[in-house]
Amino acid sequence: MTYCAAVMLDAGMVFASDSRTNAGVDHVSSYRKMHLFAADGERVIVILSSGNLSVTQSTISLLDQHARNPDSHKTVMNAASMYEVAELVGASVREVRQRDGPYLQQSNVDASASFIIGGQIRGEQQRLFNLYTEGNFIEATRETPYFQIGESKYGKPVIDRVVKAGTGLLEATKCVLVSFDSTMRSNISVGLPIDLLIYTRNSLRVGFQRHIDEDDAYFEMIHNQWGEGLRKVFAQLPNPDWDVSTPA
Amino acid sequence: MTYCAAVMLDAGMVFASDSRTNAGVDHVSSYRKMHLFAADGERVIVILSSGNLSVTQSTISLLDQHARNPDSHKTVMNAASMYEVAELVGASVREVRQRDGPYLQQSNVDASASFIIGGQIRGEQQRLFNLYTEGNFIEATRETPYFQIGESKYGKPVIDRVVKAGTGLLEATKCVLVSFDSTMRSNISVGLPIDLLIYTRNSLRVGFQRHIDEDDAYFEMIHNQWGEGLRKVFAQLPNPDWDVSTPA
Repeated sequence: MTYCAAVMLDAGMVFASDSRTNAGVDHVSSYRKMHLFAADGERVIVILSSGNLSVTQSTISLLDQHARNPDSHKTVMNAASMYEVAELVGASVREVRQRDGPYLQQSNVDASASFIIGGQIRGEQQRLFNLYTEGNFIEATRETPYFQIGESKYGKPVIDRVVKAGTGLLEATKCVLVSFDSTMRSNISVGLPIDLLIYTRNSLRVGFQRHIDEDDAYFEMIHNQWGEGLRKVFAQLPNPDWDVSTPA
Repeated sequence: MTYCAAVMLDAGMVFASDSRTNAGVDHVSSYRKMHLFAADGERVIVILSSGNLSVTQSTISLLDQHARNPDSHKTVMNAASMYEVAELVGASVREVRQRDGPYLQQSNVDASASFIIGGQIRGEQQRLFNLYTEGNFIEATRETPYFQIGESKYGKPVIDRVVKAGTGLLEATKCVLVSFDSTMRSNISVGLPIDLLIYTRNSLRVGFQRHIDEDDAYFEMIHNQWGEGLRKVFAQLPNPDWDVSTPA
């Protein structure tokens, strides 16, 4: 399982992905689910992936291969807009699923894959997309400034409560890390390390990256204080004063 | 969608279910998802249901019909153990799915249904079961003293953090209501009113029942103070002190 989240703010964007992959509990490994295509001053494109690892890896590999051998092709490194980048990712996942899908289906293997695609290309505003297994996609707006893929439910409430377009980059980062902490508590198949990338709007540079593992002091503080804070809030809520000893 | 939860404690059991049913957003209604079979001093059986409403209603109707006309049949009203009650519910859902399943499948309608079955029969300890679409079931233990069905993820973390077998009935009730509040915030298809039933161990009586709607002062307090408390805990967590303005 996977958890990835990205938020788009007036100040920039925050991307985060876990790196646990499992094929049965006896086969748990770490794979990077954050993929970066960037040229300083020109474009920063971040792709987060969730789903069948062979499908997502092949999708990214094909994008990468094309980008290295552009010839006259359109690639993520020369596309004129983030919208075109999303189209390219869609075409790539469709190509992989067309090639491998029928064989996976024969063995009842789930071939689904989904992606978050965000970043900025010179001459355009920063943009954020959520791309589905079928290759179609939607774009984030000021009203819905974030996307999640993978095991999204446990970590959704805190993002819903906190993140607005006007939220600062560091506060949104805190929120995203709380969201990861909640997810990892409830689903053992989502795990550290977390890849984190913070993009400052209009910088057209990769910006701040951090690989958060067991020794990360900030994440450990979040983990402990959030849990303790929740328990305190719960304890302070009064119990109902209902008399349950007799039928009502 | 539906959310139901039940916890089994040393002191007794707490059952709760929402009552929203929808078939598309233009067809939202309230149906009771808590079903009760009881005879004072003899047995208390609570069944919570989730899934295709025609399947769950028929499953309960057949159980009820058999209980009213026992002849020589075994029914939920004369079964000697909660285990036998779970078997009867399984047989009933299998009968309904055998009758209606193929026709639903022709229209790509999901015919799944799941149930939480809990209570106590004289001569036995209280017991709690989770029964799946296929009619098979598992039983709660002291280590895992609760079950949820339906939209379970949003409301799971708080139960995980709080409920142990030794938790008191009223504190567990508070926790279950916080769990419902979290679920209803994140999924609009789970809604008030909530049916709540608190069973005191070995009482063999239905005990405390409450129909929690928009006017319920205790639930409104939970709703407001929990949200406010979470926001406060989040605000008190320091932001990371990372310098994100330059590449790391």
